[in-house]
Amino acid sequence: MSAATQSLLWRHVTLFDGLQTLPKPMAVWVKNDQIAGVWPESEFYSELAQGAELAGEGGVMTPGLVDCHTHLVYAGQRAGEFEQRLEGASYAEIARAGGGILGTVRATRAASEADLFALSLPRLQALANEGVTTVEIKSGYGLTVADELKLLRVARQLGKALPVRVITTLLGAHAVPPEFQGDADGYVELVCQEMIPAAVAEGLADAVDVFCEGIAFSPAQCERVFQAAHAHGLPIKAHAEQLSNLGGSALAARLGALSADHVEYLDEAGVRALAAAGTVAVLLPGAFLMLGETQHPPVELLRRHGVPMALASDANPGTSPLYLPTLIAHLGCTLFRLTPREALAGMTAHAAQALGRPELGRIQAGAPAELCLWDVGQPAELAYEVRPGRLRQRVFGGEVQHVR
Amino acid sequence: MSAATQSLLWRHVTLFDGLQTLPKPMAVWVKNDQIAGVWPESEFYSELAQGAELAGEGGVMTPGLVDCHTHLVYAGQRAGEFEQRLEGASYAEIARAGGGILGTVRATRAASEADLFALSLPRLQALANEGVTTVEIKSGYGLTVADELKLLRVARQLGKALPVRVITTLLGAHAVPPEFQGDADGYVELVCQEMIPAAVAEGLADAVDVFCEGIAFSPAQCERVFQAAHAHGLPIKAHAEQLSNLGGSALAARLGALSADHVEYLDEAGVRALAAAGTVAVLLPGAFLMLGETQHPPVELLRRHGVPMALASDANPGTSPLYLPTLIAHLGCTLFRLTPREALAGMTAHAAQALGRPELGRIQAGAPAELCLWDVGQPAELAYEVRPGRLRQRVFGGEVQHVR
Ligand SMILES: [Zn+2]
Ligand SMILES: [Zn+2]
Repeated sequence: MSAATQSLLWRHVTLFDGLQTLPKPMAVWVKNDQIAGVWPESEFYSELAQGAELAGEGGVMTPGLVDCHTHLVYAGQRAGEFEQRLEGASYAEIARAGGGILGTVRATRAASEADLFALSLPRLQALANEGVTTVEIKSGYGLTVADELKLLRVARQLGKALPVRVITTLLGAHAVPPEFQGDADGYVELVCQEMIPAAVAEGLADAVDVFCEGIAFSPAQCERVFQAAHAHGLPIKAHAEQLSNLGGSALAARLGALSADHVEYLDEAGVRALAAAGTVAVLLPGAFLMLGETQHPPVELLRRHGVPMALASDANPGTSPLYLPTLIAHLGCTLFRLTPREALAGMTAHAAQALGRPELGRIQAGAPAELCLWDVGQPAELAYEVRPGRLRQRVFGGEVQHVR
Repeated sequence: MSAATQSLLWRHVTLFDGLQTLPKPMAVWVKNDQIAGVWPESEFYSELAQGAELAGEGGVMTPGLVDCHTHLVYAGQRAGEFEQRLEGASYAEIARAGGGILGTVRATRAASEADLFALSLPRLQALANEGVTTVEIKSGYGLTVADELKLLRVARQLGKALPVRVITTLLGAHAVPPEFQGDADGYVELVCQEMIPAAVAEGLADAVDVFCEGIAFSPAQCERVFQAAHAHGLPIKAHAEQLSNLGGSALAARLGALSADHVEYLDEAGVRALAAAGTVAVLLPGAFLMLGETQHPPVELLRRHGVPMALASDANPGTSPLYLPTLIAHLGCTLFRLTPREALAGMTAHAAQALGRPELGRIQAGAPAELCLWDVGQPAELAYEVRPGRLRQRVFGGEVQHVR
């Protein structure tokens, strides 16, 4: 059956619509690749969705999950470094042995597009198998114009190979590359003058990101990158307040950023800045866990000021090699004390908002039909229990994949 | 091909033998349901495994994983309670609303054997899909003679339904049931005089466990249970030093326990007692994560005194609803600072030792052929990255399951 002729109906589902769980069993109609109608079962009669085929009954339906912060295209293993750290090696020793982020950069530069595609495909497949229908993929392990574009091209190819919507982010300002040691400003100049224009010329970047931190780029340097992004019509986001409070989130918010990500060290002024700008706070519990952090993101302040909180895998080889979305929801609850409702909104509605595509994280008439049907009794179970294999169906582009 | 005529060979595998990763590529021969030979590739010639069929090449081979501490047979969801706690409800409020362990007991008592089997099968299937070939399952949600035996019967049935070796533990002394409120001694009497003998008469228990804690049973009460177990020829183990230091681990060790489990509050005297008795310390990071604990088990002391450390899921609805063995390895490293080698030994050789079946966690000639072949570059990756779907083959009873 071609996507153009699909008319599919789900009956008696418990619906988490991206923001909340609806109190009654619902019927959901998908026509072609859009959600055509959503009704309480008690108000549904078959003429409403005439000619529709019954695609499923019962279960919990959520929007397709949105993983709004990943670095999943890379080469080079860092399991050895993980092992060395746990055996007592210092960061300096690991860097001297060729590890750390620059180890990933070296391996990624040496890899061809085909290599990178083959390495990244099973990572994205794992996310898709457990419900992800939209994923953001950042560059940031190339750190030359050619290598950053190579990463973004691989990200675009992944989106053609799998039934997942891939949204790309140019993160040229991820780390100062070895060629620019001691000249971060010179590298920022390259990002602004060459990298962003080249990515735009090839249509490879949907947004621009920076790492605002003592070990990476200063607020002033980040601001230059943001200005260059805006000059090319691209939205911005920032890794900020992960290890210290430099004001990167507030800067990004003031410039209209889609999101500020990590934000463990965000203070109330920063929270207010996000609230005022409608910037999403993206929380990343995987890196918090692996780095053994103790400074929690200011969840209570974010709640109080009404800042939307997203939750993402941060999938990357150095600090968060986690490829299971329900684990991220569980860690959001157990490490950051989000409620299951907040965790699920953080991986649907608020994650989509962090990508500037709010319609992707909601179940409502007119939205793209990107849906998950789960074999669980209630939505909270998805954040409570970590058990792969509970996804019954996955809907993308109006087509149904029967996962089990 | 029937199991009786199997002769299978794996070539060029990286072998983690249960305790360590061997330095050279290896060949492994399985005949019928036993490991018939293990050789470095450089010393292998085909006459050594004459007539064997090539079953696999490359990859990382480990013993089948052993999850040595689970409570996976139960009825009743506790996702709602998880949600209430994160929304600010106190334990007392949850208990008044019918939650907590006694909520699980109520639902489990009300469930038939068939209900419990159907509920538990996907939980065990999830573990098996990701490499578990031996699982321990405890009772403890029945708390009457009939209901505890019902749980153990379901555990035995699960072992017949799936290619997993199930080892059962009677945990009658898990909590004081409502009928015995204020009379824990009376309940212990029932466990010793009726429950243990009945489980033995039906051949349903491979070991006896207790929960030694202020909120459960005193050391004196646990000792009575241990004596009754010994009188019936059953080995013993203990949940001990999870929330306080009552000396339960040392007591259990003095009586020759297979394992002391949790042990966050274990002191050096307790560690010495385990070392002297050869008792395994079973570490359970899932409950530590979900309860937001800060007291870490004394890993450095356990290392120094040579106490074998196992690592298990503690799969249960209240404090560790985690059904993914590589996640447990990851949490063992990130939360408890185990090395990947210790985490993997903790889920193979040392876990098998905690069950009194050391041969199940090793790859060596003469051991049962219970093996995993993983699509990873080195064993440490299994603890470093959390990504379902990396298991290529699973060997159990001399049969190969091609997982992917
Ligand atoms: Zn990141
Ligand atoms: Zn337990």
